[in-house]
Amino acid sequence: MALSKKPVTGMKDILPKEMEIRDYVISVIKDTYGKFGFTSIETPCMENIANLTNKQGGDNEKLIFKVLKRGEKLNVEAATTEEEVVDNGLRYDLTVPLVRFYSNNAAQLPVPFKALQMGNVWRADRPQRGRYRQFMQCDIDILGEASNLAEIELILATTTTITKLGFKNFQIRINDRRILKAMAAYAGFAESDYDNVFITLDKMDKIGVDGVMAELQEKGYGDPAQCEKYLNLFEEIMKSDDGISLLMDRLGDFLDGDMMTSFREIVDSVKATKADSFELVFDPTLVRGMSYYTGTIFEIAMPEFGGSCGGGGRYDKMVGKFTGQDVPACGFSIGFERIVLLLLESGFEIPKAPSKVAFLIEKGVAGEALCEVIQKAQEERAQGRQVLVARMNKNKKFQKEQLQSEGYTEFVEYYKDPLKN
Amino acid sequence: MALSKKPVTGMKDILPKEMEIRDYVISVIKDTYGKFGFTSIETPCMENIANLTNKQGGDNEKLIFKVLKRGEKLNVEAATTEEEVVDNGLRYDLTVPLVRFYSNNAAQLPVPFKALQMGNVWRADRPQRGRYRQFMQCDIDILGEASNLAEIELILATTTTITKLGFKNFQIRINDRRILKAMAAYAGFAESDYDNVFITLDKMDKIGVDGVMAELQEKGYGDPAQCEKYLNLFEEIMKSDDGISLLMDRLGDFLDGDMMTSFREIVDSVKATKADSFELVFDPTLVRGMSYYTGTIFEIAMPEFGGSCGGGGRYDKMVGKFTGQDVPACGFSIGFERIVLLLLESGFEIPKAPSKVAFLIEKGVAGEALCEVIQKAQEERAQGRQVLVARMNKNKKFQKEQLQSEGYTEFVEYYKDPLKN
Repeated sequence: MALSKKPVTGMKDILPKEMEIRDYVISVIKDTYGKFGFTSIETPCMENIANLTNKQGGDNEKLIFKVLKRGEKLNVEAATTEEEVVDNGLRYDLTVPLVRFYSNNAAQLPVPFKALQMGNVWRADRPQRGRYRQFMQCDIDILGEASNLAEIELILATTTTITKLGFKNFQIRINDRRILKAMAAYAGFAESDYDNVFITLDKMDKIGVDGVMAELQEKGYGDPAQCEKYLNLFEEIMKSDDGISLLMDRLGDFLDGDMMTSFREIVDSVKATKADSFELVFDPTLVRGMSYYTGTIFEIAMPEFGGSCGGGGRYDKMVGKFTGQDVPACGFSIGFERIVLLLLESGFEIPKAPSKVAFLIEKGVAGEALCEVIQKAQEERAQGRQVLVARMNKNKKFQKEQLQSEGYTEFVEYYKDPLKN
Repeated sequence: MALSKKPVTGMKDILPKEMEIRDYVISVIKDTYGKFGFTSIETPCMENIANLTNKQGGDNEKLIFKVLKRGEKLNVEAATTEEEVVDNGLRYDLTVPLVRFYSNNAAQLPVPFKALQMGNVWRADRPQRGRYRQFMQCDIDILGEASNLAEIELILATTTTITKLGFKNFQIRINDRRILKAMAAYAGFAESDYDNVFITLDKMDKIGVDGVMAELQEKGYGDPAQCEKYLNLFEEIMKSDDGISLLMDRLGDFLDGDMMTSFREIVDSVKATKADSFELVFDPTLVRGMSYYTGTIFEIAMPEFGGSCGGGGRYDKMVGKFTGQDVPACGFSIGFERIVLLLLESGFEIPKAPSKVAFLIEKGVAGEALCEVIQKAQEERAQGRQVLVARMNKNKKFQKEQLQSEGYTEFVEYYKDPLKN
């Protein structure tokens, strides 16, 4: 029987040490988001294939693990296309399932509805270091809240959680798709070029103003004067203490004044909490890839980690794509796997682990003597202690060393000959 | 766009109320099993299809959700069989993945290895009330422990967990595959008939001694004298105060004396803990379906729930099927979904929920006033309180009633006109 010991390609087994950190992160997340009134929900890992391939998922739709039809519905021999043999797919994110869930259950949910989802998603991506084809996502979303209270709560809940996990000196970068568009309009770009202009703009932190300028001209978006007008505005904001006021002043009618007042209110409300673990920064170069965003967008930047460690934004038009009726929606996803990786690599120790004791029982201890040991272990556990009961190995020294590496600090040995106890 | 709002056939969305109970059950399980030294592990939800179809899974192998190959490896048009288009499958239990995990990672694991797994499994079963095609399993297993300490620890860890979840008056029924075989041999059945005799015996609690007798004869297993000898022995045990001694006496050489001493030690050790929430009962009619069990078998019986609510046993030969080298193994699985269902239906309240307050903010509250409310909420959360911040709905009375049903017991209202505050 040639059975494979390895996990399937691109996926991994999770060993106790990493699981301990994962479980800890999950408990901090659930506890902290709970304090903000987010309630957990879960959807099946599988969705109807039509729901997953409706263009909301962008490139992720190319990476779906598809599930074969079963029973009489399946006829491989007669089939000529994938569509004929597939009915479901594994979800590639938690947003599409959330929107389906909301459409299905809205009548039983409060308004606004604050959802917390933690669950695995699957993408048949090219395997690479630190990225796997099955990974955990952790999303919070508020549905049915049109005001900026949604953004404020999402940012505070997320930053409070990240701070509780021990991270300091991180940044929340914030922008708005409408600011992006107003700036492009002010510079005079053609509306059909906006999305492409933003793709180039998104590289600002890597290639700088000159690099963006070169790429815009090389790709033929706008004339040199337009590009210069565009990039000058970015440079002005970067030098300014108050980029928001500067933009309101410069952009005039290109920008909705109420929108900017609301945008500033998000920034002010978060800053008013005077948290010292992070900084909230207006970043006009922040783009975020997904096309479904309609307003505010944000991202977590961590010094320990090159790239983004989470992000989100407002997507007011997506529920409507499912139900025909728009519902305001805003979400924030934290990079669970990256956070676990950072904690693992930093040698993070889970705070106040309870003391752990191992009872080692010689092979000959049996009958009544064994009963007594077991009783003793149960009593200690009832008092909240972690007690491992194990048979003594031949190499007791090695066994104890191994247990020490698992955090057992106390050992009690039981021998058949009571004199040895 | 005709998108489906419903979950895929046979699977379900989990709403906040049920999730709260699930999360609570998960936390009790992780905490309690942790006290016994079990460590969490996780395997991918997908396995190579060959690993899932190696006959260890019995009938479950007919219910696998299979995953389509991707990219160049897939050619639906040329394919004539399922095998050609499939490479992976979703796991139907956690035992096969555990054994693969152990084979893959044994060098990094302690001896013995005490694993806790909680994870979804999938079976394309006919949908029926209370049974879904995706459901959570919760298994503990001890690998590398040949002695009865494995059984004792598994039973105590499980009964302690079930008791912590508030269940009382439940039973652990225990038996051993070797006792089953010895009794069949003593009665004189042909060895080739054993498994079929056990299938009939398994119905004892439903059809009684006479029913079993009738079915055995009808199906032609053994002659009437053999059947009578067999069933008389069960009746004797049921009447006896000490079925184990009685069997040792009656069965003589059909039974390994050391095995029975060890079996009695399990029963005595568990009873010595004097737990009053459950009873450990030797039940010679307990069979358990899976063919991979090699020794002790056990099952949880709950008065609140007709059938079994979990079970397990020793399966010393399964690791060898993967690696060629046997490793002693014993496991106990609790019926997570049944426990959640019982708690949900009994109107179970999660103990000591923290007090929950809702801040309701009139639409006009903005700018600095909004900042103050947000600050206040953050302070209360830092002190461990759950605070929901929400815009006041037009129908405030209805909003409050809805929040009350979610457990919010205190309301603070903020108005634009400070006199109303």
